[in-house]
Order: sequence, then structure tokens, then C-alpha cells
Amino acid sequence: MGKNLALNIADNHYRVAAFDLDADKVQGVVRQEELERIKYLNNVVDARIDGCNNISEMLSKLEKPRVVLLSVPAGAPVDGVCQSLIEAGIEADDIVIDTGNSLWTDTVEREKRYASDFLFFSCAVSGGEVGARFGPSLMPSGSLTAWNRIEPIWQAIAAKVDAKTGLPIERFEPANPVKEGEPCTTYIGPAGSGHYVKMVHNGIEYADMQLICEAYQLLRDGLGYTPAQVGEVFERWNAGSLNSYLMEISADVLQQADPLTGAPLVDMILDKAGQKGTGLWTAVSSLQIGCPAPTIAEAVYARAVSTQKVQRQQLSQQLSGPSHTPVAKFADGDEQVFIAQLENALYCAKVCSYAQGFQLMAMQAKEQGWKLDFAEIAKIWRAGCIIRATFLQSITQAYQQNAELENLLMAETFAKALSEKQNDWRFAVSAAVMNGIPAPCISSALAYYDSYRCERLPASLLQGQRDFFGAHTFERTDKPAGDKYHLNWSSEDRTLDKL
Amino acid sequence: MGKNLALNIADNHYRVAAFDLDADKVQGVVRQEELERIKYLNNVVDARIDGCNNISEMLSKLEKPRVVLLSVPAGAPVDGVCQSLIEAGIEADDIVIDTGNSLWTDTVEREKRYASDFLFFSCAVSGGEVGARFGPSLMPSGSLTAWNRIEPIWQAIAAKVDAKTGLPIERFEPANPVKEGEPCTTYIGPAGSGHYVKMVHNGIEYADMQLICEAYQLLRDGLGYTPAQVGEVFERWNAGSLNSYLMEISADVLQQADPLTGAPLVDMILDKAGQKGTGLWTAVSSLQIGCPAPTIAEAVYARAVSTQKVQRQQLSQQLSGPSHTPVAKFADGDEQVFIAQLENALYCAKVCSYAQGFQLMAMQAKEQGWKLDFAEIAKIWRAGCIIRATFLQSITQAYQQNAELENLLMAETFAKALSEKQNDWRFAVSAAVMNGIPAPCISSALAYYDSYRCERLPASLLQGQRDFFGAHTFERTDKPAGDKYHLNWSSEDRTLDKL
Repeated sequence: MGKNLALNIADNHYRVAAFDLDADKVQGVVRQEELERIKYLNNVVDARIDGCNNISEMLSKLEKPRVVLLSVPAGAPVDGVCQSLIEAGIEADDIVIDTGNSLWTDTVEREKRYASDFLFFSCAVSGGEVGARFGPSLMPSGSLTAWNRIEPIWQAIAAKVDAKTGLPIERFEPANPVKEGEPCTTYIGPAGSGHYVKMVHNGIEYADMQLICEAYQLLRDGLGYTPAQVGEVFERWNAGSLNSYLMEISADVLQQADPLTGAPLVDMILDKAGQKGTGLWTAVSSLQIGCPAPTIAEAVYARAVSTQKVQRQQLSQQLSGPSHTPVAKFADGDEQVFIAQLENALYCAKVCSYAQGFQLMAMQAKEQGWKLDFAEIAKIWRAGCIIRATFLQSITQAYQQNAELENLLMAETFAKALSEKQNDWRFAVSAAVMNGIPAPCISSALAYYDSYRCERLPASLLQGQRDFFGAHTFERTDKPAGDKYHLNWSSEDRTLDKL
Repeated sequence: MGKNLALNIADNHYRVAAFDLDADKVQGVVRQEELERIKYLNNVVDARIDGCNNISEMLSKLEKPRVVLLSVPAGAPVDGVCQSLIEAGIEADDIVIDTGNSLWTDTVEREKRYASDFLFFSCAVSGGEVGARFGPSLMPSGSLTAWNRIEPIWQAIAAKVDAKTGLPIERFEPANPVKEGEPCTTYIGPAGSGHYVKMVHNGIEYADMQLICEAYQLLRDGLGYTPAQVGEVFERWNAGSLNSYLMEISADVLQQADPLTGAPLVDMILDKAGQKGTGLWTAVSSLQIGCPAPTIAEAVYARAVSTQKVQRQQLSQQLSGPSHTPVAKFADGDEQVFIAQLENALYCAKVCSYAQGFQLMAMQAKEQGWKLDFAEIAKIWRAGCIIRATFLQSITQAYQQNAELENLLMAETFAKALSEKQNDWRFAVSAAVMNGIPAPCISSALAYYDSYRCERLPASLLQGQRDFFGAHTFERTDKPAGDKYHLNWSSEDRTLDKL
């Protein structure tokens, strides 16, 4: 990541002083910049990356006020490097930018902790290694003084979107960065807000990935398709409303043969999913703030179940499932009808997971007093980042029409699309359920949709239970909000008290 | 709670010195003990509760080494009272017992913080107000020295279970506590473990309550039953394998008429569910430790959705659902068949939520080095607490047969029961899905069941995606565990690297 960000910055004609604890890595990035510069620009003299042997040397080579960019793992390493920078003589008006996946509350703390030592700034980066190299989506937050100073660099290195089509301008040429188009970076807000937004981006990404995986399993186990056949279906879907980077690469992965055995690669990959924490942070945050985000949480749990492979192997022997019924039966025996239903199911579930993520950001922003511009946030996710999709254009439009939108499902365009597709969604979930194929996210999203459609939920019974066993009281439908009542459940005449 | 615990202790012939910041409350408990003693024991002289005007007076009236029981809200108030006790001269071998719903990590901290001031001990209490008065389920943890000293009191005041039947011995008579039977208390483990176990108990309780609510809504909206009719169904269920305190009180609540209007009370209760935090703590803990507990998390989210009533009112107008199909259609038009399917669905989902809770405790115990006795934990939940149910007897037996059981679904008795009932479960979920009636917990539990039945999950595709965009590497099914591979997705020949 650090190496690719450095090369990206150098491509844009900025000079970089690079340091890493591993001297080979420093030499690696210097050498790569040199090779690419010679190859693509035929320029043998104008080195843009200067390798350094230690932090002091690096600081001495930077123009004051300095801009120092950290690319180290989240957590203690960030503070370790900050401490080293202080010892090496960093100054109060120098800027230090954390680009890792830090926990947003750590970022808030750090801005305070280092206030007298330097300007601590943070910028969450999405797009993986390729994004860092050729244009990531950048979510900077913190001091506006710092932002004003670094904004030109950020706009230069960010991914670009064609303003007319909303599509990424893709060009993967070293030394020749994309210059036209709208850059995928915008100032998010006060310290912590950028990392929070990035955290939610990753939570949505977890759901997005899991939803695609569930569709894959339904096509594979339900229709008996090969991975390559599923990959072809995904290619078709990628040309429609499900167009996204994740759909594109999933189609690619599924059609990839294993270099060692020639079998479909996906069959040779162990089905234990790793995770690095941002997905679970998102789910934790949603629980703590009381924002319903079940589809994101189910995606995190799905990864957890996948890691318990030994339990699954044993339970696959112990627990019965239905005898296999072709899922296409649910579509009158027509595979193509089933595939179309599943496509709509996936679209609807995806909208719900985005709705959850955006509502979570809105609730947290309210709590923290951040003024987040959701139209801009959706805009900078249109390219560079992992969840980039044409679909984000519709989200931008929804927030442009109503910046105060409480839930994406309320936007006319999504309410209409989901209303039209919901029947197909139900058939796809029923097919999964009756066939014993797990689809935790697709089905959880449907329960989310149906819960929000319910003017009257059975929480009234739940409040009755709570009042019965714990005297927790309840409000009444026919009395002012806030008035609390308690029924004397254990007395014989069961009178009602107003508290 | 504090008042009822004091009365319960006094019933058992212990003498209590009582203090509250509200002097009326102190007088209230003194007076109630007196009235009950005279009424039930015809004893006018032997006062067992001594009201105190301040903490110093209370300490002066206790025999040394003292036992002080706190009944204050979780969080800062606990430390506030501890500080007051120190100022009032509490001594190093006195015991202070926190009986609130404290966050377990706070308890761990407090044991350390107050080590030189007094013996900080904690005891989580379940059973609500009635439980506290006539026999709660008690989950003590911390110093064994403290436990040995208080154990006789704890065994006296705890709920009791008939050892032969496993059923609670219910007797609600002041001054005449239940003396026979197995007391619902056992030493859980080191500091924090008791509150952790109680927290998970509450997480299971959230799921249990929500599952019952979903069944209610399916019978109400699906079959058009009145609340009282649903209450009758629940009464029948309560006589079978779904027997539980929560089922019993739900049947009662549903058959209750509103004293003000005469309408079914449940229709007059506002459908916004409150919560106090333990359910979300359970879900948060499960996410942090990587234990799949989706049914518990869905129950927390269901409460969150219920509070967003204004959004739901608007969305109920905007979002389409299916045209109403009687859910009984899914059971060949026979209501009773549908009710039987739903009963089995509820049982299966309930088993899954307990499986999640017990697995979570097992994973946390491993992490913390606690040796939890799950057979005993299930035993002390058979009476006194909110989730008490005959069903817990089967859990105790499962852990008696295999104390190392990783997941309750692996116990033969549950694997068999779920395998037998799973088809009904599928029909009930399909009926909910096709009718647009939200059943997030019942359906999420089924996805959990089906995920664990899957020897091979689509996490292989997910690992492929992660390797594609982030070079996160993957393991292979045909190579030793731990060996990491990466495909060079962006190179033309796509070679495979072993890392």
C-alpha cells in the first residue's frame, strides 16, 4: 500500500522521501520508480523517490512545513511511528497523515494527543493495492488547515470518474496518471469522520461480497452449474443494474482455472474466510447506536461460520436437510426465470445493505455533530474503491434530491425498484429455504425490508412481556408519547398505573 | 430489586441493615417486612430489617467482616457507592457485592481497583422483581474467599428446582421461603465470568422474546387470529416442548384486556421496544470474538427497527408487499397443520439461539481461561430466571454427556430433534417470506442451521475476491493448513505464488 501510494504520488510529479524499517522495501520502491520512469517517460535523470535510511534523514529531506504519510498497520504501530517522528524532530506545523484502517475513535484520540507535536490528520484509503497505485478513493478528515495544504496532491492521486457517465476512467499506466474527470476524494469532516465513513464502506463491502457468494451457491448447488457457468451469469449481470467491480472480479475468479491442477480455482481455495476487523466494527457500531444493520452483521457472522470448518464437517453428517429439489422448480422449472428472480433478489438485498450503511453514517453523524454530505460520499465511491458500482450514481441522486433522507428505501427510485422486484426476491429466498441452501444475507435483507414495511410490529407484545417480568412499563397507542404505563400483573384485579 | 432482595434475605432469617438515598424507600422496606412478618408469622417483635440514615450507620450495624450488597444501576453509580463505602470506613476483609447488570469487563476492572479497600465480588441476578423477592437465579463470580462466606445465604435465597422433574418449585409466600430442592446458584468462576454468563443469558432472552413475537405476528397476520386466539395457541404450546416462562407470560399478555378500553391490551401497547444494553453487549461480544450469533443480533436489530416508527409508517405506504395469501396455504390450507409447523419452527430457532449463546460462552471462557461448567449453568437457569424452561434440562444432560461440546447442535438429542423438525421450519419460513410477514429471527436461525450443515461454503469465492483486490492470499484444499497462496491476478499469465 505504502509503496503504491508513493509511486502514485511520484507519477503526479511530486517528490517523495521514502522510509521503511525494511531497507529492501525502500530500495524496491526507488528502483521501481526508476524503471517505470525510464520505460514510460524515457527519463533517466529525474528521480522522484528518494530512499532514506532512517526517519531523521527522511525528515531532513522534506520541505517545511512537511507532509508525512504513514502506511503502517492500524493500532499500536501508528503511535509507535508518531513517537519516532517526535523523537526525530517533527515540528508543530508539519502534517502527519494516517492512511491505515484505524479505528475511528483512535483517530479522534490521536488528533488530541499529538496536537502540540504536529498536525495529526487521517485519510482512509480504499481500492486495495491497485487502487493505491493508479487511483484510490480517498476519505480525508481532520484539520481543515491540513486539508487545504494537501488537497491538490489528493485530487491528483485519487481515482477519476467521467462526470457524464458516472463510470470510472480506468487507465493503468505508470507515470501517466488520469488527469481528467472528477477526483474520488472530498473532505469528509472532523477527525475520525473519514475513518468512520471508510469503516462503513467496508461493512457494506462485507455484505456485498457475501451476497454475491450466496448467489453463487444458489446457482451452483441449486441449478448444478459449474463455477465457470456461474461466472458467465455474473458477467451478464455485470452488464445490468448489478454492475460493480465486485461482480466483475467474481465472474473472473469463477472462470479462473487453478494453475496447479487445472480444476476450477474456486474449488481449490479453502472455504475459510479471513477478516481484518472493519466489518465487525461496523456491525458493533450499528448495535451500539441502535441502527438496524442486520445484513452487514450477517455477512460478518457468515465469515465466522466459514472458519469453523471442523464443526461444519461434523454437523454436515449429523443434521438433515431437505431432499434436493431443483430450485428452478420455484420458477416453474425454468432456469432462466430463476436466474432472473435471483438477479432481482440480489439487487434488492444490495440496496438494503447500502441503506443500512448510509443510515448508520447518518445516525453517527448526528451523534457526533458531523455534517456529512452523503451525495458527495456516494460520488467518491464511484471509482477507486472496492464497492464501486454504477448504482452509486443513483444514491448520489437520491441524496441530491433530499440531503436529509433518513433511509435510502425512502428515496422514490429505490422504493419503486424494490416494490417491483420484491416478488422475485421472495421466490429466490423461498427456493433457498426449501432447498436447504444458506442465504443468510439475502434472506435477512428481506426481513429488514418487510420489517420497515410494517406499520405495526409485534414489539407491542415484547413491551407487554417486559412490563410483565420487569415492570419496564409501556407507552400506549392512544396516549401521548412519553407517558408510561404499568399493569399490575401480579395483583388479582390487574389495575393499570400511569407513572 | 434491592428492596425485594432484602426482603428475600430477611425471609431466610438473616438480619439486614438497609440504606437508600431515598429515605422513603428505606422506610418502605422496613414497614413491608414488619407487615408481612406480623401477617404471615404472627411475630411482632423480631424485626429483621433495620433502616439506616446513612452509609456509616449501615456499616456500624453490620457484623464484621461485613457483607454489603449493592443494588444500583450499572456504570458510574457502582463506583460512586464504592467510593462512599471507602469514605465511610469499609475494611479490607469486608465483602461488597455488585448485583446489577454491570458490563463484565467493568467487574474485572473493579476487582483490581478495590483490592486494597475491600473484597469486590459480583453476582448477576436474573428473575426480575418477582425473582428477587421469591427466588432468583444467581450467578456469582470473583474471589472464592468471598464466595465461601456468602454461599449459605445465596443457597437460601435462590430459586429452587425439583431435582426429579427439573421444574421450578413455585411458592410466592413472604416469610415462608422454599427450602427444599436444588438452589439455582453456583459459583461461576473468576471475576467477570458471572456477569458475562448473565449477559449471554440476556442475549438468549432477547432472541427468545423476539421469536415468540414473530410467531405471534405470523398467527395474527397470517391466519387472522385475534390476540386471545394466539394466546390460546401459546397456552397449548406451553404444555409441550416449548414450555417456558416467556411462553406462559406471552399467552397471559395476549389474553389480557386493556383496563381502559376493553380492547386487547396488546393492541393498546405502543410497538416500540425498549432495551437496556445486555442484548447488544452479547451481540457485540459475539462479533468481537468471532462467534456466529446471528439470531441474537437479529433480535437486537428487531428492537431497533421497532423504535423507528415514523420511518415505518412512511415506508409502509411506499414499499409494496405481496398480495395477502393465507399462510395456511403453505400447509395445504389446514390452519392446524400450519400451527404445528410453526411450533416446530419456533422450537428449532430457539435451539439455535441457545446454541449460539452457549458457544459464545465457551469461546469467551477459552479466551479468558475460565473453566465454565455448562451443565451447571443450564441447571441454575431452570428456575428463577426469565428464560427458565424445561428445555434447559436437555441442555444440562447434553453437557453432562460431553462437557467439551463445541456447539449444542452437535448433541445427539438436538441434532435429532432439529433434523426431524427442519422441514416444518422451512414451510413456516417460506410462508412468512411469501406473505411479507417479517420473521428475522426464525429465518436467520434457519440460515444458521443450513450454514452449519454445509461442509463447503462459498467462502472459497470470498477468499478469491479478497486475494484479487487485496492480495490477502488463500489456503488450498489440497495443501497443508496454514500454507498461503496468491494468484497474480493482474499479470497476464496469472501464476500462483506460495508465500
